[in-house]
Amino acid sequence: MNAILLMHCPDQQGILAAVTNFINVNGGNILYLNQHVDNEEHVFFMRIEWNLDSFSIPKDRIAEYFETLYAARFSMVYSLHFSDQIPRMAIFVSKMSHCIYDMLARYASNEWVVEVPLIISNHPDLQIIADRFGIDFQLIPITKENKAEQEQFELDLLKKYKIDFIVLARYMQVISDQFIDHYPNRIINIHHSFLPAFVGAKPYHAAFERGVKLIGATSHYVTKDLDAGPIIEQDVVRISHKDNVRTLVHKGQDLEKIVLSRAVEKHLQRKVLAYKNKTVVFN
Amino acid sequence: MNAILLMHCPDQQGILAAVTNFINVNGGNILYLNQHVDNEEHVFFMRIEWNLDSFSIPKDRIAEYFETLYAARFSMVYSLHFSDQIPRMAIFVSKMSHCIYDMLARYASNEWVVEVPLIISNHPDLQIIADRFGIDFQLIPITKENKAEQEQFELDLLKKYKIDFIVLARYMQVISDQFIDHYPNRIINIHHSFLPAFVGAKPYHAAFERGVKLIGATSHYVTKDLDAGPIIEQDVVRISHKDNVRTLVHKGQDLEKIVLSRAVEKHLQRKVLAYKNKTVVFN
Amino acid sequence: MNAILLMHCPDQQGILAAVTNFINVNGGNILYLNQHVDNEEHVFFMRIEWNLDSFSIPKDRIAEYFETLYAARFSMVYSLHFSDQIPRMAIFVSKMSHCIYDMLARYASNEWVVEVPLIISNHPDLQIIADRFGIDFQLIPITKENKAEQEQFELDLLKKYKIDFIVLARYMQVISDQFIDHYPNRIINIHHSFLPAFVGAKPYHAAFERGVKLIGATSHYVTKDLDAGPIIEQDVVRISHKDNVRTLVHKGQDLEKIVLSRAVEKHLQRKVLAYKNKTVVFN
Amino acid sequence: MNAILLMHCPDQQGILAAVTNFINVNGGNILYLNQHVDNEEHVFFMRIEWNLDSFSIPKDRIAEYFETLYAARFSMVYSLHFSDQIPRMAIFVSKMSHCIYDMLARYASNEWVVEVPLIISNHPDLQIIADRFGIDFQLIPITKENKAEQEQFELDLLKKYKIDFIVLARYMQVISDQFIDHYPNRIINIHHSFLPAFVGAKPYHAAFERGVKLIGATSHYVTKDLDAGPIIEQDVVRISHKDNVRTLVHKGQDLEKIVLSRAVEKHLQRKVLAYKNKTVVFN
Repeated sequence: MNAILLMHCPDQQGILAAVTNFINVNGGNILYLNQHVDNEEHVFFMRIEWNLDSFSIPKDRIAEYFETLYAARFSMVYSLHFSDQIPRMAIFVSKMSHCIYDMLARYASNEWVVEVPLIISNHPDLQIIADRFGIDFQLIPITKENKAEQEQFELDLLKKYKIDFIVLARYMQVISDQFIDHYPNRIINIHHSFLPAFVGAKPYHAAFERGVKLIGATSHYVTKDLDAGPIIEQDVVRISHKDNVRTLVHKGQDLEKIVLSRAVEKHLQRKVLAYKNKTVVFN
Repeated sequence: MNAILLMHCPDQQGILAAVTNFINVNGGNILYLNQHVDNEEHVFFMRIEWNLDSFSIPKDRIAEYFETLYAARFSMVYSLHFSDQIPRMAIFVSKMSHCIYDMLARYASNEWVVEVPLIISNHPDLQIIADRFGIDFQLIPITKENKAEQEQFELDLLKKYKIDFIVLARYMQVISDQFIDHYPNRIINIHHSFLPAFVGAKPYHAAFERGVKLIGATSHYVTKDLDAGPIIEQDVVRISHKDNVRTLVHKGQDLEKIVLSRAVEKHLQRKVLAYKNKTVVFN
Repeated sequence: MNAILLMHCPDQQGILAAVTNFINVNGGNILYLNQHVDNEEHVFFMRIEWNLDSFSIPKDRIAEYFETLYAARFSMVYSLHFSDQIPRMAIFVSKMSHCIYDMLARYASNEWVVEVPLIISNHPDLQIIADRFGIDFQLIPITKENKAEQEQFELDLLKKYKIDFIVLARYMQVISDQFIDHYPNRIINIHHSFLPAFVGAKPYHAAFERGVKLIGATSHYVTKDLDAGPIIEQDVVRISHKDNVRTLVHKGQDLEKIVLSRAVEKHLQRKVLAYKNKTVVFN
Repeated sequence: MNAILLMHCPDQQGILAAVTNFINVNGGNILYLNQHVDNEEHVFFMRIEWNLDSFSIPKDRIAEYFETLYAARFSMVYSLHFSDQIPRMAIFVSKMSHCIYDMLARYASNEWVVEVPLIISNHPDLQIIADRFGIDFQLIPITKENKAEQEQFELDLLKKYKIDFIVLARYMQVISDQFIDHYPNRIINIHHSFLPAFVGAKPYHAAFERGVKLIGATSHYVTKDLDAGPIIEQDVVRISHKDNVRTLVHKGQDLEKIVLSRAVEKHLQRKVLAYKNKTVVFN
């Protein structure tokens, strides 16, 4: 089994040596180490993964030791994960299926180490997909009137299903601030434009109007500012004057699903650190 | 020698057959034909290039015949070019050399069929480059006070040098509306962002602040709305959290020069048709 | 309803005018016209799509008229399609699911106009996917001894299911020449390398050994020369020294499925013309 | 001033901690650390850059201390560089100018920290470029008969000009094994294909014949096996059936120059480690 430590703290000399020493001295074999210094913000980021087979500190005491010896001293914000914890993901959808199919295909073929026990939708259209893959489907229509109530129902469900993080797979609803507070940097959205261009509704229409030569897709953590959360992944595809809104939508769908799946995969691998409104994504 | 006809008109049945017939019947051999129908605007676009060696209409009468027989009938906007006309290009620069070097290297090696008789700059820094390539260099500093006067001086120079079109190769000045009127869709600019994201000054700083995962460059015709003219070419390059503003500027420069040169090349080949705020770019 | 004509013939003056005239004069409205002249082979290629609503020649006589009036005269090889004919596709698989999932997701969501009545596999592993999507699944294991017999069984099945074309979605068997003869340029394969680099088995291992910085995938029509048929689509993804064979396989899978689906889509849209060992792919 | 240490050695526990400790304990501030473990070859690679301002070991003794304390113990192969050493580069050319112009533009604008005191060519065509940039130009024609002698003359020149590494900027000559021995992993070539596809002469012709949908360029260190040395950088550009050999050459030139310049830049930044027939390229 491996331990994975994600951390950031004010940049100071000696952090890297201290942490690697801690692992080495106690018999851990470092498998991956990625570090990054943000010289504008003066913040040090690190992801370190090590094998626990000969590690002298018991698994359930590592956090305590690390906290006492290093985290407090260096003012670290950190999270500790273990390779035997399988993240539990809920998918929120509306009517479009390309993103959810792409993720479920990876899930069903064990390409991803993840559990997907729950799909939530505000429309019944994609129930058939949940059925095909044997996943619980909850139809939760949202109106202006029932939004608060329905979101509370969703939160209860997510708790019941022990959901670690949520993927909005072209879920066409704005999530309330209260809801977001329960899953900080744990709700991943796909926006169908190259943000910050074409924020908001109908980005393909806007791209067509502007006459751009590339269209994009952006996957980001959801924050209280619409389409403005920390970006995890983006990509683009070339278009031309021959394209119309219909073909943009079509070309964009391939982009959306791949960009979203790449972002989810990085999150699953605990390789994304969000800091203020940006991300560090290790590879 | 070849003739090149660029045209657009309201979409109607029979245009393509009429024009191809006109060329065939009169002994022209069609080398390239590209057409596009914009089904939103109901506009038909065409570029047709044919060999004149056996063409029965004299070169200097083609425009008249075409005007009389077809252009009036189909309400065409068209331009007629001949392969022995070498376009004359002026380059406007400030202090950065990457774009102008890229273009002059193509010019000097005959990669492009173009004449570059004149470089204009508001700073003296790049005089040495003009000297290296044996091109006239005019230092024309612009201040708020002298702008109208200096632009008039520039227009006189451009006329004297018989300039067909202008390339702003990171020229850090806004061109006045009056000036633009003299070169409609004949001033090509490079903007160092993926428009419409990061309009205006310091786009790399803005991209860094936003935490995007790709940066872009956009080449467009200059219109009276800043950074909003018809886009000719765009491209992007991947960046990461490791980049800072300095490395974004560095990576962006390679993108800027290639995107600008691609746009200029398409313009030189008479493959760009601007219509309203968009372009049709044939390949 | 629309008609789609795909054709190629020795390049001669007047073909384009003749065909467009034929359609216009008889009341057809040309929707799309793409043509290409291969100046090395002196071959003219064209795809023309027109609306039949006011076309004066009955749908079932168009081929005859076209043959008599033009095809014979210009020595054309052509095929005529109608937009109400829905192509029928069989998918051949082995054990890997990423490509078939990607195609079935498009099929199930009506992204593609296609029927998929039959999946054939030499292994039972993916029966569950066929079941999920309600498609007939035939397990046809192939050994050296039974190959001729089993291929005959497959051919009978394909005939029974009225299959128009076959997609090899990581089907790990070589198809015999006899089999290929029944579906010339109608069997689409995905090879997991940037052909012609890394022909044959284990291309990701070979790419790793060579230390390339990009890996690719290639979709092509199957011909009697292994991995040497006309290429329809290729793409690449960036890798680095950090990748090992396992991560190459993983990154390559996203590429394979998208490249294969793009090729199948072009084929479905009747936009691919194969000539000798190359393709013309219109967009 | 900064020190840069590049190293590789058999992978063992404790190397990273030992080296970072060495720097920290002696007052060095680590600016960048990149490490990589090749789990197939069991080799550990590292690049570490630190500021020397408060480093207690004198600059000219660092190598000795490092050798004694760590390099011997861990069986390291390493090189030590200092940021005040400006690498000296010679460019070898034949007749094509796109690559050399791209590099000289970077050199002249101080985009690169490099000295370019010498250009060698087997043809006189590009003397004018050397003159424009004020660089010594040596015309050294190579024939089968005079090759050994002329290469010796080149080696003498390179020694006289204190050249650190050589860039073959479309230099159309094969370098002898004897010559290569003098500059192991210090001769950078650009090959105009996506290696290992289309090794040898006329790769654009071969790509055209094969009907590929992307063409590539590859920059690599020159070794005794032709076009088979460790790859530093590769990239591709999309082409189509519309391209002929002439347009492939044209599109390829933009690719070649950018790919070569990226490779040279990585080499200048001491971010490339070659091991056997591959490279580790840090970013």
